[in-house]
Amino acid sequence: MADVGTTIRATGAVDCDVHNAVPRLSALFPYLPASWVDYCRETGVEGFDPAFYPPGAPLSARPGSRVGEGPPGSDPCVVRDHVLDGPGARYAVLNCLYAVSAVHNPDWAASMARALNDWQAAQWLAADPRFRASIVVSTRDPHAAAEEVARWAGRGFVQVLLPASTPAPLGQRVHWPIYAAAEAADLPVAVHPGVGSANPLSPVGWPSHYVEDYACAALTLQSQLTSMVAEGVFAAHPGLRVVLLESGVTWLPSLMWRFDKNWKALRREVPWVDRPPSQVIREHVLLSTTPLDAPPGLDHAWVDRFLTRLGSVEMLLHAGDYPHWHHGNAPTALLEQLSPAERELVLSGNAMRLYRLPEEAGWAQAD
Amino acid sequence: MADVGTTIRATGAVDCDVHNAVPRLSALFPYLPASWVDYCRETGVEGFDPAFYPPGAPLSARPGSRVGEGPPGSDPCVVRDHVLDGPGARYAVLNCLYAVSAVHNPDWAASMARALNDWQAAQWLAADPRFRASIVVSTRDPHAAAEEVARWAGRGFVQVLLPASTPAPLGQRVHWPIYAAAEAADLPVAVHPGVGSANPLSPVGWPSHYVEDYACAALTLQSQLTSMVAEGVFAAHPGLRVVLLESGVTWLPSLMWRFDKNWKALRREVPWVDRPPSQVIREHVLLSTTPLDAPPGLDHAWVDRFLTRLGSVEMLLHAGDYPHWHHGNAPTALLEQLSPAERELVLSGNAMRLYRLPEEAGWAQAD
Repeated sequence: MADVGTTIRATGAVDCDVHNAVPRLSALFPYLPASWVDYCRETGVEGFDPAFYPPGAPLSARPGSRVGEGPPGSDPCVVRDHVLDGPGARYAVLNCLYAVSAVHNPDWAASMARALNDWQAAQWLAADPRFRASIVVSTRDPHAAAEEVARWAGRGFVQVLLPASTPAPLGQRVHWPIYAAAEAADLPVAVHPGVGSANPLSPVGWPSHYVEDYACAALTLQSQLTSMVAEGVFAAHPGLRVVLLESGVTWLPSLMWRFDKNWKALRREVPWVDRPPSQVIREHVLLSTTPLDAPPGLDHAWVDRFLTRLGSVEMLLHAGDYPHWHHGNAPTALLEQLSPAERELVLSGNAMRLYRLPEEAGWAQAD
Repeated sequence: MADVGTTIRATGAVDCDVHNAVPRLSALFPYLPASWVDYCRETGVEGFDPAFYPPGAPLSARPGSRVGEGPPGSDPCVVRDHVLDGPGARYAVLNCLYAVSAVHNPDWAASMARALNDWQAAQWLAADPRFRASIVVSTRDPHAAAEEVARWAGRGFVQVLLPASTPAPLGQRVHWPIYAAAEAADLPVAVHPGVGSANPLSPVGWPSHYVEDYACAALTLQSQLTSMVAEGVFAAHPGLRVVLLESGVTWLPSLMWRFDKNWKALRREVPWVDRPPSQVIREHVLLSTTPLDAPPGLDHAWVDRFLTRLGSVEMLLHAGDYPHWHHGNAPTALLEQLSPAERELVLSGNAMRLYRLPEEAGWAQAD
């Protein structure tokens, strides 16, 4: 642990999954059209804090992250201390999970997304040149989402953020305007567990316990990834990269083996998938390392075999998932078993290249 | 291949997943109350052949299995030739996939299940002492299902068969009468991909292509297994064994790692899960080896490491999945890499013990 802590500080890690939070709904009002502010007030809605991760549970947030009145992660100075200055990280990519995709009214959802991004630019990107952010969009109106992507590209936003739980699979054509906009802006699309779905949490209905939702979070990502490959998202958008966040990594080899075999028999159904799905995935997909779904007691041989099964260490991105707190799932166990060159890639090299981050922190702020 | 073919013949394998088919709906009429026969005729329903595996596709069925007028697998003599006499197997466990669980009317569904089991006893179990069968039940009325289990226990039926796609997760309490009956009858419960669900095929809605359904079949089993463990099915029914059929095996270690870690943090939510979920799974769950979700070019070291991750070779059951035909997914690649003792367990020992099969084929037919 101490060694890796030193390494993180030395190499200047990029933390690819930091969750900045809206302190309260009214914090967005300065960025929201008056009609929607009125609407929020008249309906008495309290906000769109994500509910999928028990917000009130003491163990949900990193010790020390609950300061001030807002939820953990809502104070830029505290977050800066905890994710940048504390560990000596080079950059932090902010993925705000405020659940605008849970708003069913597409116009309201699009306005909330715009306000949220304005707020991120003003309150977070302006606060420290080492912060980068994901453009939050609602999937309810993909054309409005595409406009929002185009509006922010290159102004400190390095990624488009989509929720993993959507009303329809993310590969389906209705979502393609978002991918076209992301590809045109040279931005990857991240998919993070989150609520925007009309569907039960599992293909067999609603489970009874949170532990089932948690243990099966990767299943949603597997469905989304399968959909994106099968529908031809990557054939139509060859420059697109997709980042799968906070759902583990060890499930992917088994899915690729199944998918490759089934594709061999059924490829005529999806002729645009012109090479094995595993190859498409290896070219277009990256995954974050927290929480790590690995057995206890990792050794070098295990990690080496896992990387062989996965296909490339260049698919992995370091992430702290601040302020969330997954006990026993820290990525340090993985990092400790990597060679120095591999560790550098996971901690920073892969992210620096993916997000086109400059060696010296900073970005050209537009007027 | 040749070596293993010899081994199968020599050891007398138990084929744990053979699909006998109903030749046509009217074949069940002799076993169905007159009122339901009238109902079938009046509504013009054509039958409940499973639709999840494209029945008309030439590649769906093993070459040579399409004989006569019924669907592949509907002639007991042909099936006997192909799965018993041909490969020299000792027993074949019949899992009839006729989709009685797709019938929403619970009384009709229960009557169809009873007729189907009567038909299996008369047409299949009576045809050869090496045939064993699963008791088909509908989950729409769990008490009727429990009665059906009790009616057949010990009369050539060695298992209860449930569809993987259900309206509610299989762990939930509504289904417990079925588990109580199975445990009382000392029968395992098998879960096989199949249609009985009101839910979309994925947690993010309906996919567009069959290849997505196929590649993601294991996700449904993962949801069901997680539900059964979390709800306490095995704590309440310590003698119960569950067999997960036709959905691969390599996804299980990653799920167990996630589940164990999340359980450590959230076990107070499910206090009846009094040891790591992986331990519960290893004690109660078996999986069939076809189709095999493994990479090409298996070697002994790979198989050895997989068995270590899985926990025990005693969790694996040999299955041919006749008459289905999964190209390139035959279990021979796995069998070839096992030691002789391991191979004997997978081919027959595990199944002989699980199903309490006598060394000499036969069973006491009740009057």
